[in-house]
Amino acid sequence: MATKVRVALLGATGVVGQRFIQLLQQHPYFEIAALTASDRSEGKRYAEAVRWLIEGDVPPEVADMTLLATDPATVLAAAPDVRAAFSALPNEIAAVAEPAFAQAGVLVFSNASYYRMAEDVPLVIPEVNAGHVDLLSRQRALRGWTGGIVCNTNCTVSGPAMTLRPLHDQFGVRRVFCVSLQAASGAGYPGVPSLDLIDNVIPYIKNEEEKLEAEARKLLGRFDGQQVVPAEFALSAHCNRVPVLDGHMVAMSVELGGPVAPEDVAQVLRNFSCPEVADLPTAPRSPIVVRDEPDRPQPRRDRMAGGGMSVVVGRVRPEPLFGSHGVKFMTLTHNTLRGAAGGSVLNAELLLRRGLLR
Amino acid sequence: MATKVRVALLGATGVVGQRFIQLLQQHPYFEIAALTASDRSEGKRYAEAVRWLIEGDVPPEVADMTLLATDPATVLAAAPDVRAAFSALPNEIAAVAEPAFAQAGVLVFSNASYYRMAEDVPLVIPEVNAGHVDLLSRQRALRGWTGGIVCNTNCTVSGPAMTLRPLHDQFGVRRVFCVSLQAASGAGYPGVPSLDLIDNVIPYIKNEEEKLEAEARKLLGRFDGQQVVPAEFALSAHCNRVPVLDGHMVAMSVELGGPVAPEDVAQVLRNFSCPEVADLPTAPRSPIVVRDEPDRPQPRRDRMAGGGMSVVVGRVRPEPLFGSHGVKFMTLTHNTLRGAAGGSVLNAELLLRRGLLR
Amino acid sequence: MATKVRVALLGATGVVGQRFIQLLQQHPYFEIAALTASDRSEGKRYAEAVRWLIEGDVPPEVADMTLLATDPATVLAAAPDVRAAFSALPNEIAAVAEPAFAQAGVLVFSNASYYRMAEDVPLVIPEVNAGHVDLLSRQRALRGWTGGIVCNTNCTVSGPAMTLRPLHDQFGVRRVFCVSLQAASGAGYPGVPSLDLIDNVIPYIKNEEEKLEAEARKLLGRFDGQQVVPAEFALSAHCNRVPVLDGHMVAMSVELGGPVAPEDVAQVLRNFSCPEVADLPTAPRSPIVVRDEPDRPQPRRDRMAGGGMSVVVGRVRPEPLFGSHGVKFMTLTHNTLRGAAGGSVLNAELLLRRGLLR
Amino acid sequence: MATKVRVALLGATGVVGQRFIQLLQQHPYFEIAALTASDRSEGKRYAEAVRWLIEGDVPPEVADMTLLATDPATVLAAAPDVRAAFSALPNEIAAVAEPAFAQAGVLVFSNASYYRMAEDVPLVIPEVNAGHVDLLSRQRALRGWTGGIVCNTNCTVSGPAMTLRPLHDQFGVRRVFCVSLQAASGAGYPGVPSLDLIDNVIPYIKNEEEKLEAEARKLLGRFDGQQVVPAEFALSAHCNRVPVLDGHMVAMSVELGGPVAPEDVAQVLRNFSCPEVADLPTAPRSPIVVRDEPDRPQPRRDRMAGGGMSVVVGRVRPEPLFGSHGVKFMTLTHNTLRGAAGGSVLNAELLLRRGLLR
Repeated sequence: MATKVRVALLGATGVVGQRFIQLLQQHPYFEIAALTASDRSEGKRYAEAVRWLIEGDVPPEVADMTLLATDPATVLAAAPDVRAAFSALPNEIAAVAEPAFAQAGVLVFSNASYYRMAEDVPLVIPEVNAGHVDLLSRQRALRGWTGGIVCNTNCTVSGPAMTLRPLHDQFGVRRVFCVSLQAASGAGYPGVPSLDLIDNVIPYIKNEEEKLEAEARKLLGRFDGQQVVPAEFALSAHCNRVPVLDGHMVAMSVELGGPVAPEDVAQVLRNFSCPEVADLPTAPRSPIVVRDEPDRPQPRRDRMAGGGMSVVVGRVRPEPLFGSHGVKFMTLTHNTLRGAAGGSVLNAELLLRRGLLR
Repeated sequence: MATKVRVALLGATGVVGQRFIQLLQQHPYFEIAALTASDRSEGKRYAEAVRWLIEGDVPPEVADMTLLATDPATVLAAAPDVRAAFSALPNEIAAVAEPAFAQAGVLVFSNASYYRMAEDVPLVIPEVNAGHVDLLSRQRALRGWTGGIVCNTNCTVSGPAMTLRPLHDQFGVRRVFCVSLQAASGAGYPGVPSLDLIDNVIPYIKNEEEKLEAEARKLLGRFDGQQVVPAEFALSAHCNRVPVLDGHMVAMSVELGGPVAPEDVAQVLRNFSCPEVADLPTAPRSPIVVRDEPDRPQPRRDRMAGGGMSVVVGRVRPEPLFGSHGVKFMTLTHNTLRGAAGGSVLNAELLLRRGLLR
Repeated sequence: MATKVRVALLGATGVVGQRFIQLLQQHPYFEIAALTASDRSEGKRYAEAVRWLIEGDVPPEVADMTLLATDPATVLAAAPDVRAAFSALPNEIAAVAEPAFAQAGVLVFSNASYYRMAEDVPLVIPEVNAGHVDLLSRQRALRGWTGGIVCNTNCTVSGPAMTLRPLHDQFGVRRVFCVSLQAASGAGYPGVPSLDLIDNVIPYIKNEEEKLEAEARKLLGRFDGQQVVPAEFALSAHCNRVPVLDGHMVAMSVELGGPVAPEDVAQVLRNFSCPEVADLPTAPRSPIVVRDEPDRPQPRRDRMAGGGMSVVVGRVRPEPLFGSHGVKFMTLTHNTLRGAAGGSVLNAELLLRRGLLR
Repeated sequence: MATKVRVALLGATGVVGQRFIQLLQQHPYFEIAALTASDRSEGKRYAEAVRWLIEGDVPPEVADMTLLATDPATVLAAAPDVRAAFSALPNEIAAVAEPAFAQAGVLVFSNASYYRMAEDVPLVIPEVNAGHVDLLSRQRALRGWTGGIVCNTNCTVSGPAMTLRPLHDQFGVRRVFCVSLQAASGAGYPGVPSLDLIDNVIPYIKNEEEKLEAEARKLLGRFDGQQVVPAEFALSAHCNRVPVLDGHMVAMSVELGGPVAPEDVAQVLRNFSCPEVADLPTAPRSPIVVRDEPDRPQPRRDRMAGGGMSVVVGRVRPEPLFGSHGVKFMTLTHNTLRGAAGGSVLNAELLLRRGLLR
């Protein structure tokens, strides 16, 4: 790959925007050519506008870049060779800005939820449903775009979707109970007030249960050349916010299509791999890490497995409520890496490899 | 009630022992006559031996009492009129000491788990299964005791058992999924190290899932005059420790015996009462408080409902995985009040009323 | 006192507003006649507009009250007999609204910082400087008001000011080092984001050090009949935010006017009392509680001493840097009770007793 | 350096032992040849005996090593070429074991406090007092040892000592006030119970204030060829435990020998370097990092500066209590890296460079 793909980062100052910057530093395929922000920050230097929240300092490559308006004309005037964009935009702005960029020929990798469930928009976790990217040609045809929109998932669904993929392929998935224990960073910054999370749990995250239930079925669905037919299992979720910084835990109870031993489930999860994806720069060596200790995964100790891109599973054991067909386990996913910025970057790497990002 | 029942408190220095002292201060029926502790503290003044962990200071009534050995001869020599004991003993000590007290004519209200599942030991939450106390006469006959042992439950099962009682009576309960988010105080003191709970969740509590599953069925079981026949529903649990001081949350998904609307479930829970128990000093006005806000119950804000003796329920909504028969909701119980010391004291009040504590 | 004084509560929906409501429930002297809020909430029922953040539920007495605009004409039209107001207004609104109420004949007990350092405004902690209330007549004369403004202090200065009062009277205070460890509730709601306080400390609170330094000298100052002459000691502060809900700790190192033994300092603090104030309804029995344990005070365990109105002191020991003149200790004050709403209510009780609130 | 120095790690299973293992993985100069532990773990595989508490997993190089008794004969029988040892032993064991190893010809780099204040034991932070290592020859002569003991400091003193070094050299230091906000990991594992740190601060750490005061003066003292003459300034500390995982903050107020501007202090701190040490493998590029933001340093965001080996300083401003001679600021040090294992490893690198470790 002689020259890097020049990309714009839309919504560069928030927590997810910062994670994108972290991941794109010295990325072998991509190079940040433009940063955008809201009106309030437009025209400022990045280092001056951002409240840097993650480890380390603002990387020097972006510190002096001037924040542009989130508008394709402005971005392409400043950086005409931009071919892709990563979007960390808030939902209501993404609704308008992402199609505008797509129309202008830019392929948008979006972390917003607005277009995830649109029929012609690929919602992709590469190890789970790389084939759904072919929906892009239909999207382009339908909408008359030369660019496009490819979405990554809600941060909470990553762990369930990644673990259900091999189980569905191997045993068939019928029903899934999920109870999440989600980290504060999932709500962005400022997000959840300290007064709500010190010595407390919030048993509710707006719209989260609905997203989890819908996105899981689309992700595990089958692309028939025209559309994605959602997978037929049922999934039900209780979502909770707990006093943890990063890392969403999901306790899962799964009913499979036939009798199964927990050891076999553990083995299938451990062996899961996706050869097409495995050597992409942001892909972890093991998409799923299965731990044997009785008390793992734990958010603080395991969230950085695979550079924050592996799903960590533990406590694989029988689920008696589903008789011999049941299994239960815990999953952990780094919500702002695999569940947000890292997922988007991996999607872009996939589309580049498939020749869909030119 | 002319004079108060004189009681011993076994294991008085731990967290649960402290809660007992708090609850027995100026109790209308009971009066602390003796405090026991381990060898290490025996012979010391209570105020000197205890590391007081709960709100306020060591109550003056007990501050100067001398700690005795946990042994019926010693206790009865020091306080011959002791008729009942509250036990906050660790399990392995309870195993030996509780029968010794029972043999010596003392009725032991135990918070330990050792005898909970014994066939002739009543495991009681008064609002749930007051009738099980009749097992005591069988226990006395079998073991030749004039005293006895009455157990309260594991701290986590209280919320599920209290909410399942009226649902089982009204609709029949078939299957129950539980995922707990448990407070640090459930592990006693010193209990869980800070290094394990700052910015973290521990997805495992030793033996807790097994206890929850077994005790729920015994609690909801039917006493046939000879024994308790466990309820026939199935219950499965994932237990987690979260960075919260007090208050165990349990996310529950329940399959009922027939079609049911969530509003009806909420109404049944709200209306639940147990007239025999309702006016006991430690009983809350509402055994179950149902909240309508989307984001309640929360441990810090709701754990003291009903003086820490009410179970707080919220987010009552359909559970699609069980079709029209399903409902899901969140429960919260104060684990060291309703789930430990308060449960024991309420049991003692019940036995006194029924004339079983003389 | 035949009938209660009818009061308005300005800024009723925030955290401090909620504490006022809690303290004024069944208050023997005061009765809430009107609640005000910002435009956004005006016209709504209180229970509907408030996000109730403290223990328990919205008290029924105020739940159905309609929120009024923060404007004296509106308030007095709705409740013509209002003679006093408690102000939990944000600073910039207090700047305009408080004088308007004072002008309209209402005596405002303000928790805002805007007028604290104004020369003719009494800044009062009853046990520390009750005599400063006489500044009110000068304020009324100068400004032509029939009402007035009486301020309570910054939440952090209460502990230092309360402990320095008896030390200054007895030994003379020369220099004071203060390092605070402040609770999240001091920043209001939403206040400090979880992402800033989980596993973290913020070593900065805007303008706090300046307030602490200036207010302490005014509080300990001498009212000469015309004005308050600030006390002449020097005080320097480092202010920090720590992951605690309520309760500001301040580590203090004090240089006194002469040689002093720590035991004598402890005794002077312990004996401190203010007879004029001691029997007011909101006054604690002991303004200062001195603890002897090596590891107290602690915010969670001691903040409710004296109903949240006592300052708790511990670790009184020599301060070698000031030679024989030095002492160091830790203070703890409940920042939203003694340091905010409780301080204001106690001020109102004092003025009522002195006949300055008619 | 052709071959690596073979080292033993004494007390390998605790938190500090784990940090040593982390730092010695692929270290260019040192190689772990033996691991020791208490009787309980002796004979077990390391991976089996350890409860691994830090990021990542047990490194494969040590996972299968067998834990030896902490005894020089055993260690040297198993690994005769061991020339140095890192000691993460508890104090009472260090008291006996460290001299035994020193006697047996091993140079012990100790993290225990037992010998720190011994007159013939170098207490060293390389950037602060590298020259004190010459005390070793006196120690060997006095005690007849061919090995020896070199101590690193208490974890809390590192920040103060590192920042006072250049200030003392440039301006002279007279008096220092320190108030620490210390992380939970400083107490080891299990260490501080969750029930003591959730929503709480503990204003006391046993013996910590005394250590801080004594060690600072020894570190800044002058080695006169025979002994270390303690520096003459006075230092006084209040030590507190706060709910933070890693990273000790110390608020400092310093009286210097003459008038000084805060900008000059900041400049002197920023420019501080120790050329002899600067290129050692574990030395950070900047021993002191000075930040300009108003709200830094913060433990979670800054503790890994310089790989956890830099001291981070912020909020440099005047200290009015010391008139024109005063300055105040905040320091942050990673307590288990710079303040423990990292400090020891850096000491060993220094001694190797100076030819004192053969």
